[in-house]
Amino acid sequence: MSDDAAVLAANAAYYRAFALDDFTEMSRLWADDGISCVHPGWPPLIGRQAVMESYREIMRNPGRDRVEHRNNQAIVTSGEGRVLCIELVDGIALATTNCFRRIGGAWRMIHHQASPIAGLVEAADPPLSSQRLN
Amino acid sequence: MSDDAAVLAANAAYYRAFALDDFTEMSRLWADDGISCVHPGWPPLIGRQAVMESYREIMRNPGRDRVEHRNNQAIVTSGEGRVLCIELVDGIALATTNCFRRIGGAWRMIHHQASPIAGLVEAADPPLSSQRLN
Repeated sequence: MSDDAAVLAANAAYYRAFALDDFTEMSRLWADDGISCVHPGWPPLIGRQAVMESYREIMRNPGRDRVEHRNNQAIVTSGEGRVLCIELVDGIALATTNCFRRIGGAWRMIHHQASPIAGLVEAADPPLSSQRLN
Repeated sequence: MSDDAAVLAANAAYYRAFALDDFTEMSRLWADDGISCVHPGWPPLIGRQAVMESYREIMRNPGRDRVEHRNNQAIVTSGEGRVLCIELVDGIALATTNCFRRIGGAWRMIHHQASPIAGLVEAADPPLSSQRLN
């Protein structure tokens, strides 16, 4: 598997763990140290304790919006890589960066940041007005 | 100089170039390839041409808001490092990540992302109501 494919697979694993509310897997995906995170609207979180507590808090909310991810693009150089993608959360588009480091042969997450894209709201399904009715 | 100090110096150089509208210096600070950027409200930009064009466009606006940066915290591991900080732009606080890679002995910028912090508006100077008048 190429480095790009491996980093994209790690990125997909992050969203899968999030969708399944699998905190154990989420915790395993993140590196043990040197990690940081900026959730939409949040101040920066630095360090494993603050970052993992934020995911535990978010996953604890049973009514939270699901997160889709699209347009994944990987940039990898030697031992570090990142994926830029678009998250869709309740129809709101977020520009997202997920950073990874190769540790012991696995790509572990070291940073996540998601920012609202001004004025860009996408629907998961085409709007009715653009669907053919016959 | 420690790695942390060197990355914080590179971060300060980025904001200095921005404040001085020094596009030549800004261009020198960024790495030649593998770069990406998410300006507030923008979709992801990938590649040197797209990123540098965005800075040229922003710097071309003579009336643009100045950017202050505070609370700089560096995370450095071997050849890569990042600084998380708070930008203040017209009183709006942004959670910002600037990523760097050591290339030929210099820390060059490889990624920038700034996200509005919900509800957090800070004033550069204390508000009048908190100033002593005599």
